[in-house]
Amino acid sequence: MIIIVTREKTKDGLNLPKRADLSDTFCPVGRSAELLGDRAVLLILRDLFFGRRRFEEIVANTGLGPQIVSARFKLLIEQVVVERHAYRERPPRYEYRLTAKGRDLFDVLYAMRNWAERWAYEEGETGGGPAMRYTHRACGADVGTSTVCPGCGEPLRYGDLKGEPSPALKAEQAAKSG
Amino acid sequence: MIIIVTREKTKDGLNLPKRADLSDTFCPVGRSAELLGDRAVLLILRDLFFGRRRFEEIVANTGLGPQIVSARFKLLIEQVVVERHAYRERPPRYEYRLTAKGRDLFDVLYAMRNWAERWAYEEGETGGGPAMRYTHRACGADVGTSTVCPGCGEPLRYGDLKGEPSPALKAEQAAKSG
Repeated sequence: MIIIVTREKTKDGLNLPKRADLSDTFCPVGRSAELLGDRAVLLILRDLFFGRRRFEEIVANTGLGPQIVSARFKLLIEQVVVERHAYRERPPRYEYRLTAKGRDLFDVLYAMRNWAERWAYEEGETGGGPAMRYTHRACGADVGTSTVCPGCGEPLRYGDLKGEPSPALKAEQAAKSG
Repeated sequence: MIIIVTREKTKDGLNLPKRADLSDTFCPVGRSAELLGDRAVLLILRDLFFGRRRFEEIVANTGLGPQIVSARFKLLIEQVVVERHAYRERPPRYEYRLTAKGRDLFDVLYAMRNWAERWAYEEGETGGGPAMRYTHRACGADVGTSTVCPGCGEPLRYGDLKGEPSPALKAEQAAKSG
């Protein structure tokens, strides 16, 4: 059992625990928030969706410390969102993959991406286009920030999209994998 | 400027800062995670989507401490996700409302709800049905956990849905507003 304690520095220097006990709520948003209301979890999930599977790769790309990534993997495995697979026996090496329950979080992360593309960039910051352009593999349409393909009307699912990062995002990714 | 420091207790008692600096990332999921990767923010947004607008009401329903809710409102107002309106002058009383940028987070919270309905409950825990049943106002169809109405094929937007909490969720809400 991992205990995550989140504290907040207030003006008068008090440290206050922030977390509500959601373990017994029936509210579905509350249940999701229990897992997803954590920056590190969201960044690790993003990396897994982008096909990063190795511990060091995820540490480098997220910028999170190794102990944080390790603790979050433990939690994600307990929650059956991630599975660990050995890809080499001597010395033992593992990779991490999304389970069906984990892959089903695609809609959440895709909605987060869509919202950020619409609201989280300054004018001109990404050079005119989106930070990451997605096209629908099936019909080739630029999907913009839609959940349903504007070209062919199909709902968009994980695996349906081909991403093309903007030059700024590409440069950032290259610098991180350094 | 609110400084949020998140710490994690490890087995050996070390307290480690967990947060990656995302302020200059170009990744849209990273930008969203900066705001949304926080349980308190998600619970407050949920309450605002459900029409709760008053501070005390949100404190009571989320189970978060008043100082936490206050700090998060400050952040959400800075980010233009929430606006504060005076609804009484003497003594001054305020209510909080989602802005257009805030209402546009509907897809994220709805996707979180859908995922939890599919994966976050034990067999029988909600009495057979979903924790919260949604029907499409326009056509009356039970939308299940779809993003597109299974009855009429329309994409589902904020305001399109009528929610009916399960008896367990209703009892919990009544107890909180107690």
